[in-house]
Amino acid sequence: MELPKKLLDLTDFFSRFPGVGDKTALRQTLFMSKWTPNELAEFGNCVKELASLKKCVMCGMFADDEKCSVCNSEERGEAKTLCVIETITDCLAIERSGFFRGRFHILGGVLNPLVGIGPEELGLDHLFERIKNDEIEEVILAVNPSVEGDATCSFIKDSIDSNLKVERIGFGVPMGGSLEYLDSLTISKALENRQKM
Amino acid sequence: MELPKKLLDLTDFFSRFPGVGDKTALRQTLFMSKWTPNELAEFGNCVKELASLKKCVMCGMFADDEKCSVCNSEERGEAKTLCVIETITDCLAIERSGFFRGRFHILGGVLNPLVGIGPEELGLDHLFERIKNDEIEEVILAVNPSVEGDATCSFIKDSIDSNLKVERIGFGVPMGGSLEYLDSLTISKALENRQKM
Repeated sequence: MELPKKLLDLTDFFSRFPGVGDKTALRQTLFMSKWTPNELAEFGNCVKELASLKKCVMCGMFADDEKCSVCNSEERGEAKTLCVIETITDCLAIERSGFFRGRFHILGGVLNPLVGIGPEELGLDHLFERIKNDEIEEVILAVNPSVEGDATCSFIKDSIDSNLKVERIGFGVPMGGSLEYLDSLTISKALENRQKM
Repeated sequence: MELPKKLLDLTDFFSRFPGVGDKTALRQTLFMSKWTPNELAEFGNCVKELASLKKCVMCGMFADDEKCSVCNSEERGEAKTLCVIETITDCLAIERSGFFRGRFHILGGVLNPLVGIGPEELGLDHLFERIKNDEIEEVILAVNPSVEGDATCSFIKDSIDSNLKVERIGFGVPMGGSLEYLDSLTISKALENRQKM
């Protein structure tokens, strides 16, 4: 039996999503086949609308206007603290924690000369300019731990005025984690980063 | 941080899908935010196109034209054998097995007077008419085993000319199944339905 092209085309799109296989994609398409034409039109429009999604000119986060809600907010206390991160999802994760009240700067990746990602591709000049213009006093490097991430942090640290406070997020045992199941590198880091009680 | 309305609207749609929670929905939206405007437009159109998806006038399966590829096919051998099933996905499952070479009839559900699904709602008249018009010689009831499914099968059996061959699919131990983990009802059915070797 051949399914109609309309179904197959849509299934093909769904199967592009991470973690969605052919079976799930077909299941989603079949689920949608029960929707009203109105719902389908609305969903279709939502999809198309995404093409005009804006990014904040300051931090690179998604935004409704020129600036995102964080960069626009006058209420966020620590406007002189800048948190440098890799991706938009990292930004959302930090926001979920509710701990940080400063501004963000999204790099969009890390330095990786092997695949042609240098300081220019990450727009590091824009970051350094922003640190000056916004009179940032504290830079928190919340870049993920990896060879490239570590190199990126070193590069940023070395390029910034040495009077500035530049810190990297702490590495160690995650909350709820168990030493028994953690890798040696994490345990070494946790011992190295021990804190006075 | 507030995400742009465009993202939230799309995430809302994704979270309607079965097995998709808020987190996965957001992940899918963020994944799509990297797509080109062209891809988004194509996907959006595919979604809208689904509103004009046709169903086969004969069997109720999705179709490109008036009739689906199975009802249209002259090559399928057993045009006089009709397999009655509940849903379109059941039809796809049977087709995947590759065993059945007859025609389908999709009920779209089973009799359930408590929620107001009677013979009319299932279009059983259309089924009985088809059995006569198409000179069907064998009816296979591949309705899932449940109280309502059993009642539906009995109702159909009683409404059909008693000269016709009416059978229900076999119940028993599934291939690769282990008696150890099967429920008592399935084991009873398997013993009852034992076959001469």
